[in-house]
Amino acid sequence: MSHTVEILSVGTELLLGNIVNTDAQMLSQGLSALGLNVYYHTVVGDNPQRVRRAVDIARQRADIIITTGGLGPTCDDLTKNVLAQAFGKKLIYDEESARRIRSHFVRTGRPVTENIFQQAMLPEGCTIFSNDWGTAPGCAFQAEGVHVIMLPGPPSECGPMFQYRAAPYLRQLSEGVILSHTIKLFGIGEATVEARLREQMNAMTNPTLAPYAKEGECELRVTAKAAAPEEAQALLRPTVDQLKALFGSKVYGVDVPSIEAVVEDLLRQRGMTLGTAESCTGGLMAKRLTDVPGASQVFKGGVVSYTNEVKHGVLGVSQELLDRFGAVSAPVAQAMAQGARRVLGCDIALSSTGVAGPDRDDRGNEVGTMFVAIATADGTHVKQLHLGARPVRARLRTQTATHAFDLARRYLSGLPYEETV
Amino acid sequence: MSHTVEILSVGTELLLGNIVNTDAQMLSQGLSALGLNVYYHTVVGDNPQRVRRAVDIARQRADIIITTGGLGPTCDDLTKNVLAQAFGKKLIYDEESARRIRSHFVRTGRPVTENIFQQAMLPEGCTIFSNDWGTAPGCAFQAEGVHVIMLPGPPSECGPMFQYRAAPYLRQLSEGVILSHTIKLFGIGEATVEARLREQMNAMTNPTLAPYAKEGECELRVTAKAAAPEEAQALLRPTVDQLKALFGSKVYGVDVPSIEAVVEDLLRQRGMTLGTAESCTGGLMAKRLTDVPGASQVFKGGVVSYTNEVKHGVLGVSQELLDRFGAVSAPVAQAMAQGARRVLGCDIALSSTGVAGPDRDDRGNEVGTMFVAIATADGTHVKQLHLGARPVRARLRTQTATHAFDLARRYLSGLPYEETV
Repeated sequence: MSHTVEILSVGTELLLGNIVNTDAQMLSQGLSALGLNVYYHTVVGDNPQRVRRAVDIARQRADIIITTGGLGPTCDDLTKNVLAQAFGKKLIYDEESARRIRSHFVRTGRPVTENIFQQAMLPEGCTIFSNDWGTAPGCAFQAEGVHVIMLPGPPSECGPMFQYRAAPYLRQLSEGVILSHTIKLFGIGEATVEARLREQMNAMTNPTLAPYAKEGECELRVTAKAAAPEEAQALLRPTVDQLKALFGSKVYGVDVPSIEAVVEDLLRQRGMTLGTAESCTGGLMAKRLTDVPGASQVFKGGVVSYTNEVKHGVLGVSQELLDRFGAVSAPVAQAMAQGARRVLGCDIALSSTGVAGPDRDDRGNEVGTMFVAIATADGTHVKQLHLGARPVRARLRTQTATHAFDLARRYLSGLPYEETV
Repeated sequence: MSHTVEILSVGTELLLGNIVNTDAQMLSQGLSALGLNVYYHTVVGDNPQRVRRAVDIARQRADIIITTGGLGPTCDDLTKNVLAQAFGKKLIYDEESARRIRSHFVRTGRPVTENIFQQAMLPEGCTIFSNDWGTAPGCAFQAEGVHVIMLPGPPSECGPMFQYRAAPYLRQLSEGVILSHTIKLFGIGEATVEARLREQMNAMTNPTLAPYAKEGECELRVTAKAAAPEEAQALLRPTVDQLKALFGSKVYGVDVPSIEAVVEDLLRQRGMTLGTAESCTGGLMAKRLTDVPGASQVFKGGVVSYTNEVKHGVLGVSQELLDRFGAVSAPVAQAMAQGARRVLGCDIALSSTGVAGPDRDDRGNEVGTMFVAIATADGTHVKQLHLGARPVRARLRTQTATHAFDLARRYLSGLPYEETV
């Protein structure tokens, strides 16, 4: 029988928005890798009645409840009490846990106060998950047809406690694995992708196929469930191949972190270097390229020419071009890329110039009017973008940078710069 | 009567852990600022039956339900259908929304496919939230004693749609006002702040005081509830003044968006310009400075000198310095700042060089060893940072950039560059 999991996160700080629920994400990833279906996340505050109500709902719709938070010594930590009560378990003082807690406090030079030993009270007959990454132990027990697993809230404890304590416990319960591949596309909208795949998606059961929109990019996730990894992979392969063939060069990678990472891999393969000249993206291209560790092998550097003065003085864009066409123009974008290639001494240079808003520029170019260019040993190519009328500044900049990266990807892969859908 | 809110996030990608639920955090912050109590977050997948069950539970325990996700054109977008059904509303085709959706697709040069108009189907008699940040409109309606508000899932749309559409709608529902001021500090740890204020915080009821740690910065939020804004302000003022006095020059602003925005305001006031020379931060400083609209008045540009070649060739750092001290050194940081000031023709230049990891550099400098420098008409100052043993690359870069901005803030405010806590 297949299990269904509910993640119950306890903590008023989550409901106030003081922290984001990264535990739930981490657990969800780990659980789906174990082949366990997560149907609900619930977040509830440090309130015994409401936690109890949430537990009573969870036990109706899941047979595995994983709680995070509320195991520590402070007075609003109540998860263990409520869960033990809900499943008719007594809390029993565990000597071994008490000993570990004491030594942890002594080791970290913190005062050993009475209340810390509250953390050594654990449900009778539970499996104790000793906590080597903090003080509060976790635990697991089965009662009334439900497996209850309690983990500490701090992500630095919850992560390893799941990986090294809860996951081994859960592995015995789960049959099969869930594996997925993510096909990353650029230059095609989610709606278009979905329109093309709707019938196929509806027809598919294993593997399943789902599209996601991401900052102007589109992802297709193919997910298969099987008894063993090899089986799952065998189920995934045909669909992945079919989708790669269907979307052709719009696919920039499968299971890759980002388009900039793909560009850097291509640069490494070709033994080439990259540089940037940024106006509207204001350093975002360089920032994204250097987010990837080891970028220095292929990324030489960049110039953020936010003013015409710098475009002219550092990149050598002629004043005549700037006066005649304005900073937001194809000729200037090209001259910026050529200048960066020369000044930075790189094989490929990317440039961006445009109106990121909030207002039109002095020449009346609309917000969202962008030019990206690439300069290589084979010449220069420029592309004009219209990224919408009332856009979000941050998204405009992100999409413009991605368009520039796509030019580099296409050049390095020997693909045409432009193509029609 | 005081309202209780439940946030219902719809999306299988959340249950698979593909994304973290930042929408719920953003909404929770905004709702508590409106004086609305959030008691539960629920996350459910793209499954009509389970969404319906989640809605039926939410309506029992909340009188405001805010959904995120499931408004887009793809077949697994189902929130509107389920919510309309649950509250006995028909979905009606809205011409105006359809027009806006069409023009958005045309403007952004994407094909207008049939399925995109599914987004123009809206519950009868609802308040339509037009979406200026994407395509899917949101909406709000009241039925059977419950307010239902539906917002799109992508954070870049959900954020502004809440701020500019949902928040004004909700303001009418909340009685009294909750106002807060946020005091932003840099150069002091949250633990230190909390230790100093613990007793005071516990003693306070209205206003309340809460510290938040943010990427190496620290925020103190003072929040007051009152019948009218003036009353709330009167409650807040004394605490804000006291805290500003207590933390002195470690306070870089109150209710300011960021330290870079503060630096740019100071530059405007002084009629001065800024430039950057970045190695380890790789464009992040320039990116953050240009995140602020209108930066071009005070930010001239920057050089991302990720390789020694560019440090020497573009910034004019002497080869002798680079050979003798290495790229990660105080003299090179200073020479980078001086070079940027000269090359970019700006009044103040900031530089960064260091080891962002994952590995030590070739001279054995540990990950987290950073230098930031500032060059002005009055000379140069360099600061060495040790940002910890087990650091995260992204956080190292963010903190290094913030340290550099703090040097500029201190120079422009006539404060000493360094001081002891």
